[in-house]
Amino acid sequence: MSSVKTDQRSTRMRMGELSERTGVPVATLKYYLREGLLHPGRALSKTQADYDDSHLERVRLVRALSEVGGLPLSAVRRVLEAISSPDVDRLGVLEAAQRALPGIRREGERGVADDSRAARWVTAHGWQVHPGDPTIADLDRAWDACEAVGLGLDEERMDAYAASVEEIAEVDVATVPQDREGAVRQVVLGTVLVDPVLMALRRLAHQHLSVSRAARQG
Amino acid sequence: MSSVKTDQRSTRMRMGELSERTGVPVATLKYYLREGLLHPGRALSKTQADYDDSHLERVRLVRALSEVGGLPLSAVRRVLEAISSPDVDRLGVLEAAQRALPGIRREGERGVADDSRAARWVTAHGWQVHPGDPTIADLDRAWDACEAVGLGLDEERMDAYAASVEEIAEVDVATVPQDREGAVRQVVLGTVLVDPVLMALRRLAHQHLSVSRAARQG
Repeated sequence: MSSVKTDQRSTRMRMGELSERTGVPVATLKYYLREGLLHPGRALSKTQADYDDSHLERVRLVRALSEVGGLPLSAVRRVLEAISSPDVDRLGVLEAAQRALPGIRREGERGVADDSRAARWVTAHGWQVHPGDPTIADLDRAWDACEAVGLGLDEERMDAYAASVEEIAEVDVATVPQDREGAVRQVVLGTVLVDPVLMALRRLAHQHLSVSRAARQG
Repeated sequence: MSSVKTDQRSTRMRMGELSERTGVPVATLKYYLREGLLHPGRALSKTQADYDDSHLERVRLVRALSEVGGLPLSAVRRVLEAISSPDVDRLGVLEAAQRALPGIRREGERGVADDSRAARWVTAHGWQVHPGDPTIADLDRAWDACEAVGLGLDEERMDAYAASVEEIAEVDVATVPQDREGAVRQVVLGTVLVDPVLMALRRLAHQHLSVSRAARQG
């Protein structure tokens, strides 16, 4: 059971303990290894290896992105690449990390039209965004879907949403670290992993508002 | 080609036109029919039927929920049931519709602990939410995931997010219609379909803020 050995730098462990400490089944860990989502451990023999804190951290990251972020493993791989890519200059780091992201959630079709309703709205709203950015197409499609089912999402309501979302984005940006790697990591992970936090908060706020409304009416 | 007939109430069409007007392949429409996600058309013969505006609307709804909302068809079915359920009293309509939702995105495990960090935060924040609500467990897990990868999401930052999200929720609630069915529909669809709008806005706001920052620094 106790396969833990300690050296001066990191706790070493066998795969069974890595599984136990991350809650990820051994079969899944082996799959991550085969797929290159997890780097190999230190070989102890032809059939055995041990793992350290870097493996622990990586498994938690893959799990968070796939289970909480809801990303397919192909997208998890792209996020991991974006985090470790040296191919980004320091000033444009936030923008570049953002660019790596939009295509993540939905694979496949994403046409961008400059004269789409979303593109016109972004311009009118005064947001400085790269005109060809695929997120504009995402916004356009999401807006269309609301329209298609009659949700009545007009420009005025979009402006109201945007004002509150900009406050959220300011909190995000204020907490981005100065160093390049830390910044990329924070932006990429923060985008994917904070979305579920905000979605849960929105549902809870709906409940709070409707309960307090009902109490006032009752 | 022109199989459209008009009566006083609704445009009637064959399946080929239903497919053309919704952008959903005929094979998928047949699948929706088999799965009960789409109600049968009016039988014209043993092998032929025609469809009307109610089918058009339903197909657009199923498509919006599955493609933009990212819901699996089992969850789409639950949303459709929640929308048409008569089993909700008028005052509690918002809350009941909300309750139908949280389990949608992720099937399976969702333990709720009263003393979880999220539950304690909700109480401290003064939000009136049903203590056993599964969304609290969603929030707890999403928060844990941010923690696990070192995003530094503390109570203070959660409070800041919550304040902006509450503004968003107020916009949502202000636009909910008075009638029961309209309200359930708006809340259920608005929750699922506005999430992608807000996620896209957040990415665009990040870009806008980093571009304007970079411009100030350059």
